Amino acid sequence: MSERLLGVLGGMGPLASAYFMMRLTLLTEASCDQDQVPAVLWSDPRIPDRATHIHHGGADPFPWFADAIDKMESVGCGAVVIPCNTAHYWFDRLQRHTALPILHIGDATAVELRKSTPQGAAVGILGTTTTLDMRLFQDRLEANGWRSVVPTGAEMEDWVMPAISMVKANRVAQSHDPINRAIASLVARGARAVVLGCTELPLAVPAGASERFGIPLVDTVDALALAGIAWAKRRSAVPAKEVY
Amino acid sequence: MSERLLGVLGGMGPLASAYFMMRLTLLTEASCDQDQVPAVLWSDPRIPDRATHIHHGGADPFPWFADAIDKMESVGCGAVVIPCNTAHYWFDRLQRHTALPILHIGDATAVELRKSTPQGAAVGILGTTTTLDMRLFQDRLEANGWRSVVPTGAEMEDWVMPAISMVKANRVAQSHDPINRAIASLVARGARAVVLGCTELPLAVPAGASERFGIPLVDTVDALALAGIAWAKRRSAVPAKEVY
Repeated sequence: MSERLLGVLGGMGPLASAYFMMRLTLLTEASCDQDQVPAVLWSDPRIPDRATHIHHGGADPFPWFADAIDKMESVGCGAVVIPCNTAHYWFDRLQRHTALPILHIGDATAVELRKSTPQGAAVGILGTTTTLDMRLFQDRLEANGWRSVVPTGAEMEDWVMPAISMVKANRVAQSHDPINRAIASLVARGARAVVLGCTELPLAVPAGASERFGIPLVDTVDALALAGIAWAKRRSAVPAKEVY
Repeated sequence: MSERLLGVLGGMGPLASAYFMMRLTLLTEASCDQDQVPAVLWSDPRIPDRATHIHHGGADPFPWFADAIDKMESVGCGAVVIPCNTAHYWFDRLQRHTALPILHIGDATAVELRKSTPQGAAVGILGTTTTLDMRLFQDRLEANGWRSVVPTGAEMEDWVMPAISMVKANRVAQSHDPINRAIASLVARGARAVVLGCTELPLAVPAGASERFGIPLVDTVDALALAGIAWAKRRSAVPAKEVY
């Protein structure tokens, strides 16, 4: 039974953080409730829009993040995860704000990639334009010895952003073709694995794509859930802060 | 935008409470994150097993419930929901413990039933033996003017409890036939609606069952989510405590 309580800073959007809680449960080896990871989900959809603030200014989400983390600490949480790629724009500032370790979604993804993909290999990254512009995954994967490959501007405009929008509009079946094309192009340019760096992308990828392309597709939501489980179960030899 | 923060006392089990958070989101009329209901999910699977304590004694879950509610109050929650039918065994004691209104899953179910089923009609109730024995739904439905019909002891043993166990063991397809038989028997005995009073049952009911039997099947998880949304959006003319 885990003594550790995981804080989940969510609500961005609320469906993605509820889905994160399901994956946290389903990815834990458990034979009864008591084996599962204790967690507090702070699901606050009132947090001002992240992409809007980055590109156009206006209401700042940072004070909302800091307040949520302080409150999760006050009720006993020992670490924080943020199941929203864009919110990681504020990661360094938040980590300076709190004494709790925040498990970075890019570091968690690197841990999963290491299981399948040799260092030095090229790794494709799919995500929103905002996530790619902030180099959320590129910097961390390159620091870990992989090369990163991202879609061209035309591929982002024609395939990736439309596929993400289709999922958000419940037109999941229509998103498969453009995302297949985007993955095929990354593979043609040498990618030996592809990171699905947006919470909508695991839904856009058609069943069996990993086998068809013969490469691992790394789901960043699952990677973050696995990092949270490892922290809760004290699977790391050193505190999470140093590992991730 | 809702100013109100809903406390969700969960982790019993953690998958059911994550599913509750997804339903809370999907049942809210929203065009962007900011329209959704702010909520804190306290997902603590360490809480001692409820049915075990009721039938055999041992570790008491009550202090865990009370502590969780106090902590949710300390971070600003204004009401509490408990997406676990069995945990409602402690409802009265918990409501005496806290000043926060707790929205009762049986009252929330009555609100939904009222939309489809005239008072005076017979209403079938499916649930675990523990839930039926504690009259969680019977007392509240009868206080609201309906008559309640429950499966016979043999039907519980042959159909309802096996169907619930099959869902818990991921054998969902096999659960459809016994649950169909249980619903058919309740309808034959006059039920004009059936309450699915266990978090596993919505999964056991085959698609289209409501149309086939020509009666509403009331999902108690959705009913509780709708009660939480009504509270958050202040749709009640009087405080939730008096309504539910």
